[in-house]
Parts: sequence; structure tokens; C-alpha cells
Amino acid sequence: MRRGRVTIPTDENYVDGTKKIADLWGADAVRDCDGTHLPKNALEIAEKVYNTYFVVRGDNEWADVHTDELQSVLLMTDYVLATEETLVVDILKGYSHDQLGVNEENPKKYWQVFDRTTGEEIFTWEYVGNGQVCISDTIPYHEYTVNFFAKNLWDSTQMYNYITNHWDIEKHKVMEPRFEATFEHIKENMQKWCAENQNVNVVRYTTFLYHFFLVFNEMNKEKHVDWFGYPMTASPRAFDAFEAEYGYILKSEDIVAQGTYQNNFVNPTKRFRDYMEFTEKYVTKTVRELVDIVHAEGKEAMMFLGDSWIGTEPYGDHFKDMNLDAVVGSVGGGVTVRMLSEIPHVKYREGRFLPYFFPDTFFAGNEENAIEELNRNWVTARRAMMRKPLDRMGFGGYLQLAAKFPKFIKRAGEVCDEFRAICDAAGKEKPYAGLTVAVLNAWGVKRSWMCHMVAHELWYQQVYSYQGVYEALSGLPVNVKFISFDDIKANGIDEDIDVILNVGEEGTAFSGGDYWNDSEIVAAIRKWVAEGHGFIGVGEPTAYRKGGRFFQLADVLGVDKEKSITLSEDKYNIEKKPHFITADVTGEIDYGEGMKNIYALQGTEVLDITISDRFQRNVNVGEVKLSANEYGGGRGVYIAGLPYSAQNARLLLRAMFWASHKEEEMKRAFADNVCVDCSYYPGSAKYALINNTHQKQHTRFFDRDGIESVMELNPDEIVWITIGEGEKE
Amino acid sequence: MRRGRVTIPTDENYVDGTKKIADLWGADAVRDCDGTHLPKNALEIAEKVYNTYFVVRGDNEWADVHTDELQSVLLMTDYVLATEETLVVDILKGYSHDQLGVNEENPKKYWQVFDRTTGEEIFTWEYVGNGQVCISDTIPYHEYTVNFFAKNLWDSTQMYNYITNHWDIEKHKVMEPRFEATFEHIKENMQKWCAENQNVNVVRYTTFLYHFFLVFNEMNKEKHVDWFGYPMTASPRAFDAFEAEYGYILKSEDIVAQGTYQNNFVNPTKRFRDYMEFTEKYVTKTVRELVDIVHAEGKEAMMFLGDSWIGTEPYGDHFKDMNLDAVVGSVGGGVTVRMLSEIPHVKYREGRFLPYFFPDTFFAGNEENAIEELNRNWVTARRAMMRKPLDRMGFGGYLQLAAKFPKFIKRAGEVCDEFRAICDAAGKEKPYAGLTVAVLNAWGVKRSWMCHMVAHELWYQQVYSYQGVYEALSGLPVNVKFISFDDIKANGIDEDIDVILNVGEEGTAFSGGDYWNDSEIVAAIRKWVAEGHGFIGVGEPTAYRKGGRFFQLADVLGVDKEKSITLSEDKYNIEKKPHFITADVTGEIDYGEGMKNIYALQGTEVLDITISDRFQRNVNVGEVKLSANEYGGGRGVYIAGLPYSAQNARLLLRAMFWASHKEEEMKRAFADNVCVDCSYYPGSAKYALINNTHQKQHTRFFDRDGIESVMELNPDEIVWITIGEGEKE
Repeated sequence: MRRGRVTIPTDENYVDGTKKIADLWGADAVRDCDGTHLPKNALEIAEKVYNTYFVVRGDNEWADVHTDELQSVLLMTDYVLATEETLVVDILKGYSHDQLGVNEENPKKYWQVFDRTTGEEIFTWEYVGNGQVCISDTIPYHEYTVNFFAKNLWDSTQMYNYITNHWDIEKHKVMEPRFEATFEHIKENMQKWCAENQNVNVVRYTTFLYHFFLVFNEMNKEKHVDWFGYPMTASPRAFDAFEAEYGYILKSEDIVAQGTYQNNFVNPTKRFRDYMEFTEKYVTKTVRELVDIVHAEGKEAMMFLGDSWIGTEPYGDHFKDMNLDAVVGSVGGGVTVRMLSEIPHVKYREGRFLPYFFPDTFFAGNEENAIEELNRNWVTARRAMMRKPLDRMGFGGYLQLAAKFPKFIKRAGEVCDEFRAICDAAGKEKPYAGLTVAVLNAWGVKRSWMCHMVAHELWYQQVYSYQGVYEALSGLPVNVKFISFDDIKANGIDEDIDVILNVGEEGTAFSGGDYWNDSEIVAAIRKWVAEGHGFIGVGEPTAYRKGGRFFQLADVLGVDKEKSITLSEDKYNIEKKPHFITADVTGEIDYGEGMKNIYALQGTEVLDITISDRFQRNVNVGEVKLSANEYGGGRGVYIAGLPYSAQNARLLLRAMFWASHKEEEMKRAFADNVCVDCSYYPGSAKYALINNTHQKQHTRFFDRDGIESVMELNPDEIVWITIGEGEKE
Repeated sequence: MRRGRVTIPTDENYVDGTKKIADLWGADAVRDCDGTHLPKNALEIAEKVYNTYFVVRGDNEWADVHTDELQSVLLMTDYVLATEETLVVDILKGYSHDQLGVNEENPKKYWQVFDRTTGEEIFTWEYVGNGQVCISDTIPYHEYTVNFFAKNLWDSTQMYNYITNHWDIEKHKVMEPRFEATFEHIKENMQKWCAENQNVNVVRYTTFLYHFFLVFNEMNKEKHVDWFGYPMTASPRAFDAFEAEYGYILKSEDIVAQGTYQNNFVNPTKRFRDYMEFTEKYVTKTVRELVDIVHAEGKEAMMFLGDSWIGTEPYGDHFKDMNLDAVVGSVGGGVTVRMLSEIPHVKYREGRFLPYFFPDTFFAGNEENAIEELNRNWVTARRAMMRKPLDRMGFGGYLQLAAKFPKFIKRAGEVCDEFRAICDAAGKEKPYAGLTVAVLNAWGVKRSWMCHMVAHELWYQQVYSYQGVYEALSGLPVNVKFISFDDIKANGIDEDIDVILNVGEEGTAFSGGDYWNDSEIVAAIRKWVAEGHGFIGVGEPTAYRKGGRFFQLADVLGVDKEKSITLSEDKYNIEKKPHFITADVTGEIDYGEGMKNIYALQGTEVLDITISDRFQRNVNVGEVKLSANEYGGGRGVYIAGLPYSAQNARLLLRAMFWASHKEEEMKRAFADNVCVDCSYYPGSAKYALINNTHQKQHTRFFDRDGIESVMELNPDEIVWITIGEGEKE
């Protein structure tokens, strides 16, 4: 099929050009973009016409009249040192005064003050007005913080754009739908908008109700950005509603959590989980009323998994209640593809690909770079598409700009064709998977494919060595599950799981933190591994200092981390050995930030170890980077870190096959060149060999039965092979 | 003075050679050595004649008859996994059967069994004989350990020599002096030995009562070595005596401590401190009885701070009770010099220098290497000698071997002369110090100059980045104190202290671990710094996760460590700035193992930051390695790690002067070349310029009044300068 599944931006001033490119790319949908307007007759150009819609933002006419019905945000001040027995805290210090004001509603009820040096809550304080909290009976040289509600004066995304692009715009204010009058007004707006936009059949909700946590500092520079953060959902009204619904009083500290704001890396407490659920129920119920209006008008409702998704939790229990038709999100790589493509309870999922058609890329002389960005983004995402494709793809920006680059237009058309081909082959059935692997962390399914994300898959020094695991998994021929410690406690470990992965730094929700102090979890996993399964740890897996161990599953992993309290114990196991897991490695393995002070227990096979130039090859020196361990009938593997690369993806694949005792099954529907992935679709008897590089590649190819042949692939190419007939389900 | 202060080894077969070398080196003392015997007329060769003496070791005639009066050792088994509801533990598994047997005395009273997966003590177990403990009601897939008393069958040092040198010897058994008959026998031995050794006037106690913790594994390879470890002092008899004296029952776990054995890196608990004190009181009282015998015979008593020093604690409260005349120890560098030279309550302190006159160094053709080892050892130690000299120096081994290398003999003679010159100048008065600095840790004065030691100053990857601080301090023109957290709680911070240093890894006794959860300590130091003092942190200073901070004095240091729970907070302070502290740096600073994920708070001056090649120079990347922070009227400095080098010693000196606001005073009695130290002795108006390198050096020299001149120093040279007249005290 040469048409469909593709969305392009359009503009009322570029109708003919849009038609031409729609034809070249087989686009069946158009959308508006910041600063553009849809043509009146858009439905003549495309079957689907999307228009952005802001539920709570930018209705300043209403906002200026209902100033008490705007949104709040829950914040903590900076640490302030007492030097005497009273302390005055300027609570907005360090925060943008353009974005934030003080919400003075009943501070004594909603705010809290902490002595962070003792950890205790302090009650001897007053809000004295003018943004000042006066604390008395302070202890000199203790640090204090105030949790308080700020007024949210400016939509965070608009402010970001204002700052970044120097746009000269009127500040968008943000309404709080928990006020009845405001919510009625929101519904009226929706109804009215539908009536006025007959040329639109897809309402693209750029915002729902609450923005992710994004606040700016006194210089209007970004101060705190957490794509998963709930502080902007919080308000006195929300806290009151929570108390009525849950029967206990929520405290500001339940969300502030010592300034971590219970971000994605922090183990969620019971109270924070309650608050999330409370918010999810409210957001989904409220959005549903809007979606019902849209549906009644014969339009589809599409959510942008971007600015204001908080409280929707696409992998949560309440997402389905919104009755959405579609989700759209931006694609950064394989992980974001899977995060989008696996969202349940919608009819279709769309990815917005790069480059964005903006002047920063589409300027004269930059065509080759634009094509390179397109290829890089596409090839990275494509691995994941082969496993679980998106239903639609799209581009954003100004189509006129892209139209000036004919080679880009041609290449993008090829990508669209390839996208449709993948959807046809991979969209209908589950591809063959040699293994089922489960990522174990505090979140489980609720934050599927969202692990170790800071904002949208941003490159942070502290996370890329772990994110690479998910990026590798997104395109490997294995089924991937996300499970939580609570799942294991409640239901044990699912029968279909071959390997459990535990990835991350000590004390984070991804490694598990306090969960590893739970002997029930520890024993359950040990038993499960010993019975013949695999456990792979990356970084500081199972880390919790207890009983003389740092890794609570040191016995399973075969390694532990030296925290300088067992230096007196001699460590002899430092000899590096060849292994199935490292059979495809050429050169050095890239462990990213790696991990220091890991040593192997007796009996563990050391597959890679770093010995600094400072040291002789002696006992008690060297840092294990990769190891393999037999544990009863099962196996454990330790990896110091795994940034994404073709070689590292293969290393992980081999580690998983080895850990689950299925080494013999690896070379089924398999390409042995590490730069080539193989996806097999048993229903249609189709194999896809995917060249993930921009170079020509040769590979040995093994079919389902292990029969071998040699293949050549052009740069970026997918080769489709059909062998025999499709299996019946 | 060309004679005195020097000890050389001798042998009954090498009397004339000894006389000749004694004359060349000005030696006034001779000693025996393993496998040699003193000449009968040794007192004719030298004024002092040392003979090694073993208090508890090697009297097998007695030991074989009194098999119930031998020493024990308290051990923990390896972790053993239960897979069913009973578990049999082979308690000696993994331990050397040549060294250790089971002490079967009343296991139910003295042993303990732990479920290390829950952390709980288990009582459903029996010792079933034959080294087997049977635990019932085990929980499958929990790990268990047994704490038990082993019989110590072979002196650890002798076993080490046996293994290392393949000596063919009869196993030395080790008597337990807590048995009355044995102790009476020990005293008789001492009396008898004195009578039989009239040619000896210094009893060199190679062992006192208890060996440091040193046990071997089933392959007779070293398994656990802790120069500070108390497990070899423990026995059922000691536990009973403890209960009688302290009124509560000591538990094996009080010493085993999850297999850490409360080593030097572990915060000492109240119960472990009690046990140490109990042991110190016993050891010093017991040794005193022997020393009194020796003194009655007109001989001196000298302790070897080596194999069996445990329970003496030279910086403890009871050391003085032994009434020793002298201490001798081996010199590895400046730190060991100061560790020895500052020991109180003895008449003199001797260092044994390298190389040891053994065939592994003194073989034909190796003379240059032997000289090089001598120079390296001497120059390293000499820096510390200038601040607080030893009273005597010595060599060990076989003098005949050294005698074959005439250039070595000549160079060693020069070293002896230089040693005496230093003693004359620096031994009588305290050298000038521009500052008083205090190392703050859990041990304080009790483990002065013993911080971060694993065995004797051994080179461990996990410690050299911290040990460098002490090595630097050992030769810098500052007064050095060691203080503990308990000191601060009890008595505040001494008035003379300018700067506090806190050095080490999270959760260790050197960084402080749980002490940083004590708000009283935290506030006391903040106040003290704010009042105008300095605080310098190296590695993970003040580390304890609490209140959203990792470094509890992050505000003072100006930096904190990102533990992946505040990634959402933007970090802008990444610009490196020139500073007083780095003014003498050329090239890269060596931080050793360094420290990951340190970021600067707002307002802190970043003096060095590492940004990996993977990253653009952007917000939220980069790892601060060195920083400076104004804090009230005081200052904080952070250093990621500081292995010893000339440049790093200068960096530390500058950091200390800056932190204490005394920058202007640094260039008094000062050499600006980083390879040259300057020591000034006000009483005699003497300055010493010490060239710490084997190359010629030029330096600007500043006298006490800051008057400047230029000096040239030959390789290894000390230049002495007298300016004006000595100050009166």
C-alpha cells in the first residue's frame, strides 16, 4: 500500500504544496503547527485532519476574571541556614517570579516546615505575608526548608518556548479544572470549539489537565524538569479532595519528599501511590467528559504524550477510562517507539519523527544534514518498529521549509514506504521471540519503557549506561515485560519469564533500594534462579547494605561491590576467561560510566576486568566489568554498564540466552553480524534482516530451523525473505 | 655527631665485618635476625644489643602438654544457602586446616548463628561435632552464617613466612596467657631468658600476646589480613572475663560484625570499644609484668609494632601502663614515620628502613637497585622526619650481604649521617607550623596516622587516593591532630585548630558514616566554620543520605554527590576558574580514583571539573573534582581524591592556607618549588630546604619574614641555613 499511516503538517498558505507532498509520501493526515492555521478545506486534502487543542491553557479571558481558579504547584524552598533562633525564609527565592507567585491559601493547613538537619517537622512558624515565612525557635546552624503552594502564573511549555525562541507572546495562564465553574467553562469551550472546527476530525490534545513538573529559576532558566513529576497537579483543592476520598490527610512532604518530588528514580511510597491513583482517577474521569463531547461530534480524540500528560499514566489502571482513540508522541529512539507502540486501549499510536521542519535545520545548504538526521532517527527507531510497530508516523513544523529540499522529500518518501511495509508485516502478529525477559524495578508495568528517563530520553551522564539496556531490548528478538517487586510479592514470578534484569544505581527505584531489604523478595528470586532461570544485573543491581553484603543477590550475581569495609578479605578471582557471552566482542567493551570496586566471589567466571595502570596484576586489585555465575540450576550475569551500541545489544542478547540456558536456541531466525537484526514473523513466514548501519553489511543468516545462508545488505536496508508457509496460530 | 642512633643486624659469624660497618655508619646497636644468632660478646661491639623475644609463640614443649591453654580466634563461616528446612554448615570450610581447628568449648554459650537474609539471630541449631553445625527450621533460600571459636594451631606470621619463603620449620604454637598456669610459665620463661642472655640489653618483643587478624584459606593462601583486627584476642576465657568485668555478656557478633570484624574502616560500636578497652587493659597489665622482670634485670624493653601489637594501641589510654622503653617498626613512608615518631610514653622510637638485607635484593649485579630502594625509602621518610624525627634508625637482614656492595655501604653511611643531623636539629624542638589542622574521623587520636591503612600502608586501589592526604601531611609545615566525632560532642573543637579535614568513602569510619546523622555534630562544625575556620573534604566527606542531601555538609563544602535522585534539578555551575589553591599546578591534577557525580552548588567556585568526551559542555554534565566555597566567615574546600605527589602536597597546603584565611602567611619559611619542602626551627634559627627528588632543583626561598632568595639544591639534598639568632621559648 503506497498510501496511509502518515501525517504531515500543513498551513492555510500552502495547500497545493501540501497536496503534492501528501501524494509523494502517501500521507493521509494533516495537522497544524505552532503559528500556522489549517486550511478551511483541510478535509479535502486528507482523510484525517488534526488540530491542536489546549484544555486548560491560554484562556486568559476566563483566567483574568477567575483569578482564584488557576493552577498551583507544590514546591520546596532552597535549604536555608539558621544562625540565630529565628529565621525568615523568602520562599520564592531561586524561583522565577514571572512563572510563580505565592498561593497564600491557609498556609498553616497546607504547608510544612522541616529542620532538614534533624529531619523533623517544625511547627513554630508563621506565614507573615509578602512571601516570607518566619520560623521561631530555630536551632542555630540547622538548615530549614518550607514546603508551600505556589501559584502557577505561566504555562511551563509556553514559557520554555518563550525563553528558548525569544517569542514575544502573551503569557498563557493555566486554569484549574477542580473548580466547578472553571470545569463547566472548559466543557463549554470544548463544545464550542467542536462546533467551530468542522474542518477537523481529530482533536489533538496538546495539553490535558496538568503539565509535567517544569519550573524556572530567578533568571528564567530551567530549574527543575521532571517529565514524570506530579507537583503541578497538587493544590489545596486537590488535597481536600484527597482527604475526602482516601480518609486521611495528605501532607505536602508526601509529594515534596526532601526535594526529590518523588521523581521516577525514587521508590514510590504508599502515600505517593495513593496520590498518583487519586490524580489518575480524577484526570481520566475529567478528560472522559471532554472525549465524550468530541466523540458526540464525530471526531476522534488524540492525546499528545508530551507537555501535559501527567495523571494519564498510559500503562496505569485508569488510562482506559478516557476512551481515547489515539496517542501521539515524539520518537527519540527505540525506547520511545516501544513506549508509544505498546500503549493499550487506543485504536492507534503515532510517532512524530525527526527532523522537525524548523529553520534551525532547514536552512540553505543544510540538506545533507537534514537527511542524515532523518536517517539516524529512522534507523534507530526502526529496530523497535520491527518488534512492535507504531500505527502511524508523522512530521511536524513548516512543510514549505522541507519542500525546498527535494532530496530530503525523496528520502522521506522512502521512509514512509518502509514504515508502511513494516506495519503490514509486523503490525498484524507478534514476531518470533526466543526468550521472555522481565525488567524488575519498583514501578513495573506502570512505567513500561520509561525507566531511567530524565525528561524525554535525555542524555544524562548518570543514566545512559543503563538506558542502553532498554534501547538494546527495544529491538532484540525477545518478549519484554516490566515487573515490580510488589508483583513478585503478590503473585510470584510469571511462568513465561526466562530472565529477570535488574538495572541501575543503589537507592533508586530502578535498582530497587529498600525492596532489597525484603527477605521474601530476595528468597523468591534466589529460588526462581536456582530452579533454572536467569538473573542479569547491571550497575548496582540488588544493592542494599545489609548482612555484610552490598548486593543482596551477590550469591546469584557472583559479584559484590567493595564498599571499603571488606578490604581485609583477599580477592583472588581476577583472571579473565573467554565465554559464550563475549563470543562476538571485537575490541574493548564499552561499559559507559562503568562501575567501580566490583569483585568476583569464588567460582564466578570473570569475563572482563579492568586493572588500572597504577597496579600490578595482584590479588585485591582490578574491577570486574562482566561476569557469569552458575547458581543451582540457574545462572547470574553481572554487567557494569551497557550504553547502547550494536555490540552491546548483542552482548546483552547472548547474556540473556546464556542465563536462561538456551544458548543452543540463539541461532534461530538470527543474523550473526552484530549490526544486523533479524525479525521473524511466523504467521507469514517472513524474515526481515535489518541493516542498522549506513554501510553495506554481510551476514550469515540462520532461519527458524538453524539453516544457514549468507546475505548482503545495502546501507540502511531491510531485506525481506519468505521461507516456507506461514504457521497457523 | 658521627656516632649513635643507628642499629644494624649482626651474626655470630660476622663479628669483624659488623665492627667495620658499625664504624662506617656510626652504629651503636646490633640486633639479631631470623636464622642468626648474636655473638657472645655482642656488648663489646655495640652499646645496645637487641634480641628478638617471643612471649607466646613457639614454646611447643609447653603447648603440647597444655593443649587446652592455647589461643583461639573468633571467625565467621562463609555464607551458606539453605535450600530446605535444615542446613548443615561445615564451619571450617574455606579456612586453612593447617592453621585452624574447631574450639568445641560450649558452642551454645559462645557461638551464634545468623540468618543474614533477614539479619536475625537463629537459635534452632546444634553443634553436632566434627566441625558441623546443624541448623533446623531454616527458611529455604536464605543465607546463614555461623560465628564460632576456632583453635589457633599455628602462629600467623610464622605460617606466612613458611608459605612465602617455603621454610621448612616446626609449627609454632601459640599460648593463651589468660590461663594462669600458662602465664606463670610465660613469666618464668622471661626470667630464665634474661638470666641466659646477659649479652643482651634490649629485649625486642617481636610478639607480645596477640597477633593481628591473619588467617589463611583451604589452599593455605592468605584469606583475611587486618593489621588492626581483634579476632585473635577473643576466646571463651576472654569472653567470661569480659562479662565479669563489664557486667554484660559480650556476643560473638560484637566482634564478627557481619564478617567485617569491626576493622579499621568500620565505625566502632560501644560494645566493640568496650572490648578493645578490656583487651588493652589486659594486654598492658600482662606485658607490664614482663617488662618489670626485664627492667629488674637492667635491660630495656622494646616493642615491635608489627606482628603481635594488638591490644597495645600506642595512642590509647593504657599504652603508658606497659612502661616500655622503646618502640620499633618498619618504615614505608612519611605516614609510618609519623605513626612511630609520635608514639608517647617511650624513651625512643626506632624505624627499620629499606631495603631489607635479604638475597632477593642483595644478589650480584643488583647494587644500583639496592641503592635506589634505599634512596627512595629514605627520601620519602625524610619529609616526615623533618617534622617529627624518629630517635633511631636501623636495618634488618644479613649484614654480610650488604657488605658485598661497597657503594651501598657508602650511601647508607651518608644516610645515617643525615639522619643524625636531622635528629639534632629537629629532635629538640617543634618546627615552625603555619597552621594547625585536624583529621576528623571515628577514631580520632587512638588511630593517629593509622587512617585508611590496610595492613601496613599497603597499596590498595580503594585507599591510595585518601592515604595521599596523610602522606602529604606527614611532611608539610603544619601541626597535625587527629580528632574524633566523640571529641567534638564531648569537648567541642580545640581552639588551636585552623582547618578540619574529613577524608574517605561513605559509610566508613574515616568519612564517618552514621556520625553524620548526628545533628549536634553537623551544627557544631557548621558554626565553627562560619566563625572563620576551614573545612576540607576529600572523596565522600560527611556522606550520609538524609534530608535530600548526600553530603551532610554540602552547604559548607559547596558540592554534593548526585545519587540519581536529584537528576531533575538543573546544575549550571560548571565553569572552571583559576584560584589560589591551584596556582602551582602544572598539567593535570591527579585525583587517583577520583569521585564520580559530584556537582557544585550555586556560588561555589569550581576549580576543576571533568567533562567526558561523550558529552557536550552543557548543563547537568561534568564532575567537579576540586572546588572552593565561602561559608559565612569561613571556607570549605572539596577534593575528589589526593594520591601523594609533590604537586598534590602543595595543592593540599594551599587548600589549607586558603580555607583558614591565611593565604598571606603561606610564604613564610617556604620554598616555592613544589619538589622542595622547607622546615624551620625557630629555637635554633635554622631552616632546612629539602629536595625530595633525585634531580637538581632551583627554588625561591622565603624566610620567616618573607624575605626572598634563590637557592639551588643537589639531588636528594638538604640545605641548612641559619638566619639570625634562635628565638627564645
